[in-house]
Amino acid sequence: MSKIVCGDKKQVTIDELESYIHREIPLTRAMHVRVTGLDEAGLTLAAPLEPNINDKGTAFAGSIATLLTLSGWALLHTLLDAERTGLRVAVTDSRLTYTRPVAGDFRAVCAHPGMDAIDSTQHALTAQGKARIALQAHLFEGDTMCATLEGTYAVLI
Amino acid sequence: MSKIVCGDKKQVTIDELESYIHREIPLTRAMHVRVTGLDEAGLTLAAPLEPNINDKGTAFAGSIATLLTLSGWALLHTLLDAERTGLRVAVTDSRLTYTRPVAGDFRAVCAHPGMDAIDSTQHALTAQGKARIALQAHLFEGDTMCATLEGTYAVLI
Repeated sequence: MSKIVCGDKKQVTIDELESYIHREIPLTRAMHVRVTGLDEAGLTLAAPLEPNINDKGTAFAGSIATLLTLSGWALLHTLLDAERTGLRVAVTDSRLTYTRPVAGDFRAVCAHPGMDAIDSTQHALTAQGKARIALQAHLFEGDTMCATLEGTYAVLI
Repeated sequence: MSKIVCGDKKQVTIDELESYIHREIPLTRAMHVRVTGLDEAGLTLAAPLEPNINDKGTAFAGSIATLLTLSGWALLHTLLDAERTGLRVAVTDSRLTYTRPVAGDFRAVCAHPGMDAIDSTQHALTAQGKARIALQAHLFEGDTMCATLEGTYAVLI
């Protein structure tokens, strides 16, 4: 089972994260979001086309924006062990670029920002009670990249 | 009943637009999106908090991004009478800024870009078969602005 090591070495599993997201954010159930990857490289969320379809028979831009934004949030939430520590993670701004229509099931991949970035975040939280961190995520249909997010997320004690 | 005059003078009503969105984009039904304003000033979409809530008890960023992005799409779709003409409208990039948590029901307001912008779009479509148009939308909880979108939308014949 894929796991990721949090700041305090607790190991969070895919199933735990998916259960948390589904329980706390009902729209992710409507979108049939699944956590399909969680390791040192980053986090992957997947969604089927059908509940996320639009009038052109492709993926709804809102679903694409949501999956990308959520992938960054979920990665930070996990890396900072936010469910246990009570840290609040929220996107503050994002730039979304839609490069191709998505004609099938899709997934959002948010790359791990590197342990230096996580350490800086932890230090800022200790010193100031808040931190910001930049993340990039990419949306794929199969091997084809169809959209990107550059986001800034705030973390608050 | 609020109406908006399209390029060919057909009058589209709120009910027609809401029915189209709900029929063609199932996620809007899960979000309980409603079209609540459609006139010469622009378009307003509303959504209740409960189906759009997150783990902090505020509106999910994905729902905010979706409502803002959809408001621009729906305004152009209506102004260009896209359902009848078959024009395709799609967001190509957006900048989203989340300034405050949303603790209740919310709405996205996309301002009419002005008839000069719509005329330019129509001319570009005639000459080149495609056009781009910039739109701004704002998200409110009551009178408080909580998020903004600056988006670029493509229109294709």
